[in-house]
Amino acid sequence: MNKIEHLGIAVKSLEESNVLFAKLLGTEHYKIEEVVSEGVRTSFFKSGPNKIELLEATKADSPIAKFLEKKGEGIHHIAFAVVDIKAEIDRLKEEGFKILNETPKKGADNKLVAFLHPKGTNGVLVELCQEIKEV
Amino acid sequence: MNKIEHLGIAVKSLEESNVLFAKLLGTEHYKIEEVVSEGVRTSFFKSGPNKIELLEATKADSPIAKFLEKKGEGIHHIAFAVVDIKAEIDRLKEEGFKILNETPKKGADNKLVAFLHPKGTNGVLVELCQEIKEV
Repeated sequence: MNKIEHLGIAVKSLEESNVLFAKLLGTEHYKIEEVVSEGVRTSFFKSGPNKIELLEATKADSPIAKFLEKKGEGIHHIAFAVVDIKAEIDRLKEEGFKILNETPKKGADNKLVAFLHPKGTNGVLVELCQEIKEV
Repeated sequence: MNKIEHLGIAVKSLEESNVLFAKLLGTEHYKIEEVVSEGVRTSFFKSGPNKIELLEATKADSPIAKFLEKKGEGIHHIAFAVVDIKAEIDRLKEEGFKILNETPKKGADNKLVAFLHPKGTNGVLVELCQEIKEV
């Protein structure tokens, strides 16, 4: 857990929220990326060493669509940067945390990602993410 | 908005969650601080350039007690570090954001803080915080 890599925020309209968060953060989003497998379209803002990721659902049955339906717009997850995601998953399992996907999957922003079950982390959806390096 | 200063997480028991988050983050909390005026007891963990702040209510009518009652445990707010909180409040007001306390107040961890109304920020409770420097 080297730092907060990003904070994920579920929004209804990426177009509208990109304008809002540019005003809030004083900087424009620097990219938009769709993760088809997750049914989500994302945009990214920089805040010093951290990022803000806005998440818009592209399918009615995607996790973000369900989150918006149940809880409305707001903070969806916190992602921590890790150097070795497999070692970190093993460490956390040893500590008793439940990992939602024990095999890391490809997420947005060139990352390998895994999520912890929020029931084991005081209701917080925690993402681990490791930069994918070209060999 | 220089970086994510910290992420605030509302918990029922600081004692239990301190143990849980030490396991999660791989590091112990480095301080506990009560903010009597807010009816809250906090603990802080470091994660590289960022912090995690756990928040436990000390009074039944405090904002954190109400949050826990309404939403349960989970992420409560995101705090951004700013250099000049008054200038940032003015800038955000100009941009149309609603500031919950236009006069910054003393928060935990030696900070001057102000909050933005979550209705204007896609349901996200945003805190601005400026380090208080000894003169």
